[in-house]
Amino acid sequence: MKEFADAARGGLSADALEKTLRDVGASRYHNLHPLHHMMTAGLLSKEQLQAWALNRYCYQAMIPRKDAMILARAEDPAFRAAWRKRIEDHDGDDGWNGGIARWLKLATGLGLDRELVASQKGALPATRFAVGAYLSFCTDRSLLEAVASSLTELFSPIIISERVPAMLAKYEFVTEDILEYFRPRPAQASRDADFALAYVLRHADTPEKQQAVIDALVFKCDVLWAMLDALEQAYGDHGHVPPGAFDPRPSQ
Amino acid sequence: MKEFADAARGGLSADALEKTLRDVGASRYHNLHPLHHMMTAGLLSKEQLQAWALNRYCYQAMIPRKDAMILARAEDPAFRAAWRKRIEDHDGDDGWNGGIARWLKLATGLGLDRELVASQKGALPATRFAVGAYLSFCTDRSLLEAVASSLTELFSPIIISERVPAMLAKYEFVTEDILEYFRPRPAQASRDADFALAYVLRHADTPEKQQAVIDALVFKCDVLWAMLDALEQAYGDHGHVPPGAFDPRPSQ
Repeated sequence: MKEFADAARGGLSADALEKTLRDVGASRYHNLHPLHHMMTAGLLSKEQLQAWALNRYCYQAMIPRKDAMILARAEDPAFRAAWRKRIEDHDGDDGWNGGIARWLKLATGLGLDRELVASQKGALPATRFAVGAYLSFCTDRSLLEAVASSLTELFSPIIISERVPAMLAKYEFVTEDILEYFRPRPAQASRDADFALAYVLRHADTPEKQQAVIDALVFKCDVLWAMLDALEQAYGDHGHVPPGAFDPRPSQ
Repeated sequence: MKEFADAARGGLSADALEKTLRDVGASRYHNLHPLHHMMTAGLLSKEQLQAWALNRYCYQAMIPRKDAMILARAEDPAFRAAWRKRIEDHDGDDGWNGGIARWLKLATGLGLDRELVASQKGALPATRFAVGAYLSFCTDRSLLEAVASSLTELFSPIIISERVPAMLAKYEFVTEDILEYFRPRPAQASRDADFALAYVLRHADTPEKQQAVIDALVFKCDVLWAMLDALEQAYGDHGHVPPGAFDPRPSQ
């Protein structure tokens, strides 16, 4: 297990900082989680995929608020103009024709009730706590740390390229249509991650700030990992659903 | 599974509200969690008990900050004087001779390094997110809801009365000395819960406020449940430790 607690000691060149940030992803991004491996191996039930989509909706629904918080804290109009695209991507023109709406399409395409998903009422408390921690992080920490915490998008084209073909190949009830969410994401994520990475490399100009941005990315990887952990604990083969959460089992 | 989403519809008498709050505990308090049952049955390993103590420390360490937040929001000096006792119980006279110090004694008595536990560095991210959610709740919600979220203490004498005799009987390495934390807790918790319950019953004087206090107690039960879920997911017999967290297994 690679540790990053002292990774910036003595200060890093921009190249070395970028390499360290990519190392964080290579050792802690959630494409390494057993549940992701089960998903791409076709080993999840439809109900387990439903639970994934329902819980992940909480994350999707919060992302534009997180980005608005970053926008609210940014003093540079050019930064805001670039960052604002993220909100547009997720909310679309009218709130319901962007990424969030496409995630709902995925969830309903898997057989979930749209109102149940959108209400977030069946989500795991652990999902809500992780998502809330991410929003709090972007509220309470420095703008630089908030930007750095978005850098998991450096790695999202990888996980999407693993997830989408596998889901289409391994689950007969999954169609290209319901996976529409993922179609524009690699290009959007690359554009956003390039911008955020350049910002971080330019502004993390002391060893302390470099360590802070590394820690921010570790934190964000922890958030994504904890969301899959919570799903496995609740809906995995040895799991049990916590009181009040979505329970796909037929009523006894 | 008892639901409480509409429990206060139409308004409740004080007696009915108290009964509903006690019903929340009877159906959602973490003495119902499988990991608690395993603990009292003597089925946990020493390493699993270490993970429990190490993670629970994060909660213990945050409690006085949560109570200080409630203190900071309370305008009534008499309320503050009563609530202040909670901080004194946990911090002691000098910060290190109250409940937090006794929890460290439990952790070190189980064989953990004091600095590791106090640093909270080995704690599960999911523990930190749950504990952070509790602190945020007491910061962001109404004072009434913050007070109501403390009402899990109504039920803590039960779980302690189950836990302590079982730990002494079932684990040869557990002594009365290292369980000193729990000795004063039932009396303190009863005193505190009586005060908080009386406050809640007096101030929750509309159906909306009654529903809010019920929801607050459900939320707090979710926090405690999620902490045990996270332990089971990481350290249970089918678990896997997330990157960077305390790993009691001998290095490979």
